[in-house]
Amino acid sequence: MKLAMIGLGRMGGNMVKRLAGGGHDVVAYDVDAAPGKALAAEFASVTAVSDLAGVIAALPKPRVLWVMVPHQFVDSSIADLLAAGVEAGDLIIDGGNSNYKEGQRRAAELAEKGVLFADCGTSGGVWGLKNGYSLMIGGTDEAIALIAPALTTLASNDGKGWGHVGPVGAGHFVKMVHNGIEYGMMQAFAEGFELMKAKEEFDLDMHQISRVWQHGSVVSSWLLDLTGDALEQDKDLSSLSDWMDDSGEGRWTVNESIDLGIPTPVLTLALQMRFRSRQKDAYAGKIVNAQRAGFGGHAIKAADKE
Amino acid sequence: MKLAMIGLGRMGGNMVKRLAGGGHDVVAYDVDAAPGKALAAEFASVTAVSDLAGVIAALPKPRVLWVMVPHQFVDSSIADLLAAGVEAGDLIIDGGNSNYKEGQRRAAELAEKGVLFADCGTSGGVWGLKNGYSLMIGGTDEAIALIAPALTTLASNDGKGWGHVGPVGAGHFVKMVHNGIEYGMMQAFAEGFELMKAKEEFDLDMHQISRVWQHGSVVSSWLLDLTGDALEQDKDLSSLSDWMDDSGEGRWTVNESIDLGIPTPVLTLALQMRFRSRQKDAYAGKIVNAQRAGFGGHAIKAADKE
Repeated sequence: MKLAMIGLGRMGGNMVKRLAGGGHDVVAYDVDAAPGKALAAEFASVTAVSDLAGVIAALPKPRVLWVMVPHQFVDSSIADLLAAGVEAGDLIIDGGNSNYKEGQRRAAELAEKGVLFADCGTSGGVWGLKNGYSLMIGGTDEAIALIAPALTTLASNDGKGWGHVGPVGAGHFVKMVHNGIEYGMMQAFAEGFELMKAKEEFDLDMHQISRVWQHGSVVSSWLLDLTGDALEQDKDLSSLSDWMDDSGEGRWTVNESIDLGIPTPVLTLALQMRFRSRQKDAYAGKIVNAQRAGFGGHAIKAADKE
Repeated sequence: MKLAMIGLGRMGGNMVKRLAGGGHDVVAYDVDAAPGKALAAEFASVTAVSDLAGVIAALPKPRVLWVMVPHQFVDSSIADLLAAGVEAGDLIIDGGNSNYKEGQRRAAELAEKGVLFADCGTSGGVWGLKNGYSLMIGGTDEAIALIAPALTTLASNDGKGWGHVGPVGAGHFVKMVHNGIEYGMMQAFAEGFELMKAKEEFDLDMHQISRVWQHGSVVSSWLLDLTGDALEQDKDLSSLSDWMDDSGEGRWTVNESIDLGIPTPVLTLALQMRFRSRQKDAYAGKIVNAQRAGFGGHAIKAADKE
């Protein structure tokens, strides 16, 4: 099929490569012209265009436009596409990490113009180019049918890695929960490895253990594979800090658990531990120490003199 | 090599099959004579014996004796083996789920008699027979060398699934942490799936989602595979209760985190949620309701009349 990729960053660029490698024609656009030119030079089936009017002109109707930009630029990208000539019957897919409620709003706004919208959660990161992605898409049957051939190429394991999971919103909702689970799994591994590292009497080899567990254990997983690779390259992880960032989906998952009144203690604490990792001189710790001092008799650790 | 398997339950019996299939001679013993006879009928290289004296007589020196019994019977099994004629230089392996401190004690006691001891954590469950196990063993180099050929056969992926992780105690310590991580991962998946199930507006298909995630997603894992299999067989899991049991290692992991002063909030809460699952009429809930009623103005849910 022929489709456009709007946004040629790490994810979008790799997806263009996988689509072109799978026999699709891709119109490639990015605000930065360089990645499109590089892709067009590598693949005969990729056409790089320098503006959105060029995207619209290059596609057959109904046009299929995959938007793969940071979530804060999705609305402006859609507005720019509409201004450039997107018409009723065309399909816009948001393949990034938007909040599912934003997708529901966008679908409703676009429906007023007859433009189709689908929200696709995409997992697999930089490994997706080689192994294929895991894709969860929400939208109408009509919309999904337009993009299905591309999804089959993008997905891992001969197309098994994608699913039409529900109406618009469902794609990013499922991806959001996926990332929430990911936070919990990562924190579980992190705590276990820290406990083993702290057990000095056994002088355990974290890399060895990660490799033994890869073969036949209950915790074998892609995250464990990645952990083992990291420990192979840097035995003590001394090149890394312990500051743990987060990128939205973990927070949205916990917000959703509050909205629905569903207990998610592990997903919640995994998120909270990321917040805690960023504190160097936590006020909460000072409060507790003030209270312990107040009881009398408790030695407290004074702030370092600077 | 030739070794004895003491205990022919689900785990021990399958391990005998895998050892016999891998060309080893196995002396099989269980307090129940039936499984040993069945194994001997299936494999020419398995000899079933009816008492521990028979085990001792059937093995060349130094004898290698793998004890695979519930943890509460390990001490009595070792005592019985000593009474039956285990000698200095022989090796006893505890392959079950003992607390690592018990292994350290047993090793010290056996060392007084010159008997070698190794503690082996074994993951893989009933799937180990076909796929091989993940084995973490602790002990001296001398002890591990005696059992290494059998470990290579038992382990998955051509022997990659086993590791000599440290001195006696380290095998069960690493297995304990492995299970603690397993609790956290399981609870993370459980919370995520519950959140998706509760999002009724999307009418999500849990089995479909589990399968999409298997292919290329960050949460792909053996636990997800098993979850997908269960959802395939019973879409709503209506055949299952929500009572979650635990078998020791989760508690030991949390105890260890307390002993070492290492934060493990996710592993701890995963365990606590198992405790919570067993409460039908929690006193803690009544206490909170009593307090809310005390504030005045809060409607509280009265106990059902029986």
